[in-house]
Amino acid sequence: MTDDKVTVIGLGSMGTAIAEAFIGAGHPTTVWNRTPYKAAPLTAKGAIHAEAIEDAVAASPLIITCLTTYEDTHRILEPAAAVLPGRTLVTLNSGSPAGAREMAAWAVTHAARYLDGAVKNVPSAVGASDTLIYYSGDKAVFDAYEPILKALGGDTVHLGDEIDLAALYEMAVGALLLPTLAGFFQGAAAIRARGLEAASMVRFTGKWLDMIKSLLPVYAREIDSGDYSDAASSVNLFLAGAAHDQDLARETNVDVAWLGPLNDLVRRAAEAGHGDHSISALTEVLSKPYQPTSPSG
Amino acid sequence: MTDDKVTVIGLGSMGTAIAEAFIGAGHPTTVWNRTPYKAAPLTAKGAIHAEAIEDAVAASPLIITCLTTYEDTHRILEPAAAVLPGRTLVTLNSGSPAGAREMAAWAVTHAARYLDGAVKNVPSAVGASDTLIYYSGDKAVFDAYEPILKALGGDTVHLGDEIDLAALYEMAVGALLLPTLAGFFQGAAAIRARGLEAASMVRFTGKWLDMIKSLLPVYAREIDSGDYSDAASSVNLFLAGAAHDQDLARETNVDVAWLGPLNDLVRRAAEAGHGDHSISALTEVLSKPYQPTSPSG
Ligand SMILES: NC(=O)c1ccc[n+]([C@@H]2O[C@H](COP(=O)([O-])OP(=O)(O)OC[C@H]3O[C@@H](n4cnc5c(N)ncnc54)[C@H](OP(=O)(O)O)[C@@H]3O)[C@@H](O)[C@H]2O)c1
Ligand SMILES: NC(=O)c1ccc[n+]([C@@H]2O[C@H](COP(=O)([O-])OP(=O)(O)OC[C@H]3O[C@@H](n4cnc5c(N)ncnc54)[C@H](OP(=O)(O)O)[C@@H]3O)[C@@H](O)[C@H]2O)c1
Repeated sequence: MTDDKVTVIGLGSMGTAIAEAFIGAGHPTTVWNRTPYKAAPLTAKGAIHAEAIEDAVAASPLIITCLTTYEDTHRILEPAAAVLPGRTLVTLNSGSPAGAREMAAWAVTHAARYLDGAVKNVPSAVGASDTLIYYSGDKAVFDAYEPILKALGGDTVHLGDEIDLAALYEMAVGALLLPTLAGFFQGAAAIRARGLEAASMVRFTGKWLDMIKSLLPVYAREIDSGDYSDAASSVNLFLAGAAHDQDLARETNVDVAWLGPLNDLVRRAAEAGHGDHSISALTEVLSKPYQPTSPSG
Repeated sequence: MTDDKVTVIGLGSMGTAIAEAFIGAGHPTTVWNRTPYKAAPLTAKGAIHAEAIEDAVAASPLIITCLTTYEDTHRILEPAAAVLPGRTLVTLNSGSPAGAREMAAWAVTHAARYLDGAVKNVPSAVGASDTLIYYSGDKAVFDAYEPILKALGGDTVHLGDEIDLAALYEMAVGALLLPTLAGFFQGAAAIRARGLEAASMVRFTGKWLDMIKSLLPVYAREIDSGDYSDAASSVNLFLAGAAHDQDLARETNVDVAWLGPLNDLVRRAAEAGHGDHSISALTEVLSKPYQPTSPSG
């Protein structure tokens, strides 16, 4: 690598962690943020603070952005378009596959090379050897920058040449975060309503997540084969479990309303003939647009 | 232990796994099921099949039930009430804390000792050294039977003397199972809509679950202290992410309707002043009865 300079644009929680990882790995790091004061802790660690976005982009062959959305990224980079040709842009925000494709089209018109990526972890994990970050886009560009990008996470993966794959997997894999956390928080609310501490759940919930993790290959096999008949935990079992939500609400005054549509999905799966099938048959119901047959409860 | 005989009542997926674990551990095991043919694979392995519930209960000092609900358990045990005095009943079904308390009252009137328990794993994990099963009820009764109960799972835990604690934790910890699985299945539906295999997500989702597991102590601390101000991932960040659900639906024709009320919870947390707070502040919103302020989207 003849030039290992990097520029990091966007210094929120994640962008700051990214800039710190590059600084820590010894890369000359230029930073820029809309709200300039966020650069101060990084310049204290050796980063160069560019006040103008054009200067930030002009400073390095590799430009990493970590703003909230692709739209923000467009808007912020637009004034620097003239200095973009020949550089490599890597976007590390969350967003839709369509957003990644639009970003790619924009990069092409400005003669920039482009990779899209997604950090599959929290800011504090950036830079760790086990941290997963995946990228999509031109493999040759990825190969050229992989040694630099590895400073952000040891488990750096190229998903494919299609530019929107990282956004697709980011969404598809990321889909379970909020539902999982909400389930944990709801349990914590119930435990605390009883005068116990949420901390008392941590070991149990951790094992519960391990258990779920161990089931993923089984569910994936059922889904990919379309054969849901060998059910360890059936749709009907979850349907029976749905009744407990109201019990929990009654006991602990916890709001379980958000589980209603989830239980409806289970009910629809049973109605579609999947009652004795594996709960993974929910995938079939989720794949179809919703056609309400009865008022949802 | 002078008498290590056990009776298992209810031979569904879980009850069968429980009976097998006892047989495997060398306990003289009597089994009973409403639909008698399910006993056949177990008698082939050495179990004694009792045709009448009275005989099943009379056969052992320790009676384990694993029916679908507490109500089913009452109904099935009622005809055997006369032979129950002095025996120990352990219920291993899912259910509400109230159900466990009613079961305990019923056991008292029939002079039976009673523990409630919950298997925090799938049937195939029953008997493994790491499998978590928790119990609540009289500690002296638990201590007396712990050596036998350990045949079902090496991680056997007594939560406390209050009989409904196992059901409470079962519900509170279990709350995230369906939401987590639905999130995974939705992602799988999206990946498959693109012509890719659900199996390609397994490694990534597994790491994602590890990441979530590593955050649980942090969230529990925030929740127990009520201090949500040091946010690694804020409510507003999840609010921004909510927009991506519709993108996913548009791209892949996946049904995301069930995420609507979940995103409403996030919106309510932001409206309640938690925008810049940790996402664990959702616990506060879930702890309050739902007071709709605007039509939910
Ligand atoms: N935090 C996480 O746990 C995490 C994990 C994985 C992925 N991500 C993704 O990483 C990206 C950034 O997340 P974050 O946690 O760093 O968010 P954040 O702390 O809220 O920071 C957002 C960044 O975007 C900038 N920004 C937003 N809108 C802008 C606009 N219109 N013009 C210019 N700058 C704008 C902000 O600038 P100002 O400072 O001027 O506001 C700030 O630098 C998001 O797509 C997020 O989904 C985050
Ligand atoms: N499977 C799991 O992954 C899992 C994990 C943790 C906890 N659990 C809990 O374990 C319990 C049993 O689950 P499972 O998976 O074994 O369910 P299952 O395979 O559906 O078996 C249900 C059992 O209950 C019996 N039963 C139901 N209603 C009855 C009634 N009215 N009268 C008499 N017997 C009745 C069934 O008898 P028949 O054979 O005659 O129908 C069968 O023995 C549930 O509470 C479940 O939540 C299950």
